[in-house]
Amino acid sequence: MDYDAYFRSALDGLRADGSYRYFAELERRAGNFPRAFHHGIGREVTVWCSNDYLGMGQHPAVLEAMHKGLDEGGAGAGGTRNISGTNHYHVALEAELASLHGKEAALLFNSGYLSNWATLGTIAARLHNCVVLSDAANHASMIEGIRHSRAEKQIFRHNDVEDLEARLKALPRDVPKIIAFESVYSMDGDIAPIEQFCDLADQYGAMTYLDEVHAVGLYGHQGGGIAEQRGIAHRLDVIEGTLGKGFGVVGGYISGSAALCDFVRSFASGFIFSTALPPMIAAGALASVRHLRSSQAERDGHARAVASLRARLDAARIPHLANPSHIVPVIVGDAERCRMLSDRLLERFGHYIQPINYPTVPRGTERLRITPGPLHTDADIEDLAQALATLWQEHDLALAA
Amino acid sequence: MDYDAYFRSALDGLRADGSYRYFAELERRAGNFPRAFHHGIGREVTVWCSNDYLGMGQHPAVLEAMHKGLDEGGAGAGGTRNISGTNHYHVALEAELASLHGKEAALLFNSGYLSNWATLGTIAARLHNCVVLSDAANHASMIEGIRHSRAEKQIFRHNDVEDLEARLKALPRDVPKIIAFESVYSMDGDIAPIEQFCDLADQYGAMTYLDEVHAVGLYGHQGGGIAEQRGIAHRLDVIEGTLGKGFGVVGGYISGSAALCDFVRSFASGFIFSTALPPMIAAGALASVRHLRSSQAERDGHARAVASLRARLDAARIPHLANPSHIVPVIVGDAERCRMLSDRLLERFGHYIQPINYPTVPRGTERLRITPGPLHTDADIEDLAQALATLWQEHDLALAA
Ligand SMILES: Cc1ncc(COP(=O)(O)O)c(C=O)c1O
Ligand SMILES: Cc1ncc(COP(=O)(O)O)c(C=O)c1O
Repeated sequence: MDYDAYFRSALDGLRADGSYRYFAELERRAGNFPRAFHHGIGREVTVWCSNDYLGMGQHPAVLEAMHKGLDEGGAGAGGTRNISGTNHYHVALEAELASLHGKEAALLFNSGYLSNWATLGTIAARLHNCVVLSDAANHASMIEGIRHSRAEKQIFRHNDVEDLEARLKALPRDVPKIIAFESVYSMDGDIAPIEQFCDLADQYGAMTYLDEVHAVGLYGHQGGGIAEQRGIAHRLDVIEGTLGKGFGVVGGYISGSAALCDFVRSFASGFIFSTALPPMIAAGALASVRHLRSSQAERDGHARAVASLRARLDAARIPHLANPSHIVPVIVGDAERCRMLSDRLLERFGHYIQPINYPTVPRGTERLRITPGPLHTDADIEDLAQALATLWQEHDLALAA
Repeated sequence: MDYDAYFRSALDGLRADGSYRYFAELERRAGNFPRAFHHGIGREVTVWCSNDYLGMGQHPAVLEAMHKGLDEGGAGAGGTRNISGTNHYHVALEAELASLHGKEAALLFNSGYLSNWATLGTIAARLHNCVVLSDAANHASMIEGIRHSRAEKQIFRHNDVEDLEARLKALPRDVPKIIAFESVYSMDGDIAPIEQFCDLADQYGAMTYLDEVHAVGLYGHQGGGIAEQRGIAHRLDVIEGTLGKGFGVVGGYISGSAALCDFVRSFASGFIFSTALPPMIAAGALASVRHLRSSQAERDGHARAVASLRARLDAARIPHLANPSHIVPVIVGDAERCRMLSDRLLERFGHYIQPINYPTVPRGTERLRITPGPLHTDADIEDLAQALATLWQEHDLALAA
């Protein structure tokens, strides 16, 4: 068998339907965010699609903590967590994250992807006869974790309390159940009815597993996410988050009861058998979490930028999804056109917004997903809205009513 | 259902059979490796079980590259590789790793665990009717990747050419096949018959997937691993490695044909849907790989330390597994005793060697796994051998013949 020929033909398929991904080679410049040097076009651009939502990746407190961590402890952890790889910064960061979410414990992973995959994969596999009730719009990392567990899975309609309840009701009371969902959904920016899901969990004896990847750092008075903002963090069994988006560094975690975190620590292959995050990364994430627990400036600036962009898009009648979060999706609905608009924005106007195509979003909903932040100035926002208006007109695209 | 009670009882089970893991909280001190401050006992110890085999985690070239990367680009990547997260350091590191292994391309992951899991999980799932032939001693990350793919798996006897051939022979010629194995096995330190496996792959039309996690940086004139050392890198379809052990930082990768790497890049959920490694981490890993491609000093010092420890253990008649690698396993064969010896070594002699128990190794083969390196002095090695000899005598443990 000619393996390479097979790989090539699968790639040709992607190219043919416009979903082949081209990576933009960028140099973000610390102190100069949201600007970055774009190697493809050889000039500086403004980045509008980063998930370093608050610009913490260039925050002096974070950089200083990382420089210090590097000087103190060196580059890497030197081992898995169990075999010489646990540093005091890992321990301190886990304590800080537990406290952030008001939980007994937390557990670090090398990414948010791994924290979802390993935790759901482990718990659902080991709870005998477990059924996982999974929101239809859940992230790939949760889907793969559930798939890996081989537990029974039921997909409930996205954010649909009634559908979830009907499914819970139909299951025997004594069967272990996990309700897995997100707070802010990253592509549409809508938010789950967390409280109602928790009510159902209480009523039907289910565990709740909440992915707050697109909310931690950003929402709640201490950056504890939507659950903190709504005062219901104590009602979730697991709150999962990332250190790589709002917190600006890299890594993932879960927080929950001491027993649950110790269980995952003890049984999750994806946690046990892998070199730990570098202590200096944990030091940087710790500084970021601590900063965002007390400072409101980044969250305030973020909210202002989001409101300002929405207002200007409305003024220019550029259609965008209404939602209660910081994510501003401008739906284009066609992979080729989405890429064309992204290319024009970049080459003509110096605005970088990656086109989001299938399989990240369903076909027909291809979009420019804009994530304005506290580092975008009013002038940046005005400039982007004008550029979009120009393109909308030139290409005769539908305007909002 | 009381979920926490279930978690607690599972943990009690681990405590009862001695396999509950206690993490040592350490502070390695850059410039002072292999010394670390041990928070549990409140003093400085010598670390003998790190997988930062060459001490690259404190190498000035690596630290300088990371400081510089941090100043230039900040803390994190700011996105997934596709959505604003590809930095020029990622691109440069992938090119360097491809060149290191003599391949057309390479692809970075957040860990070696992820690179194995995602690559095998993706390729084996998408090659229609694929059969994976997996060495019985393969690492958890490969096992989970194969499991995730749901492809048919056949486990062949560890390093057994005949068993592998019998299995290949029994499969239809036109069925896609992947032979998945490691070069240096991390717990016993033995090495696969790579060349014979490649011969079989040629003969029976199989792909070869080689995990060189415990060999990259350490073997071969440029640190390309055992395949480089034996001049057969070109015969492997995939060479997988880590940036977290011999290279001293964190992260994982595969190298292979351009089509294969692009295929995994395009279809592997664990690659696509996760925040990229921080550019400053890629910068550090790049510096480490480059250094070890030209410098022999670390590999020479490493080989000397390994030979010296083995000679001293032999002189003291401490039994240890003979193998052709740098891993020196002192088999104890009992979880409790293994932990006791580790505790005594630490508390009385200031030597830290984590006990390796089930499920990392089979029950009955619990061990002290020693990884001496170029930073251990002759005096350190002598001191450790004496400490072991003292404990062997005091506890009346069996001596080597
Ligand atoms: C909802 C959700 N969960 C988890 C992840 C994975 O987190 P990380 O980027 O830290 O791997 C992502 C995005 O990457 C995400 O969008
Ligand atoms: C053989 C083998 N492969 C892969 C891995 C995973 O690599 P990483 O530590 O970079 O996740 C390990 C150890 O952790 C290993 O021993």
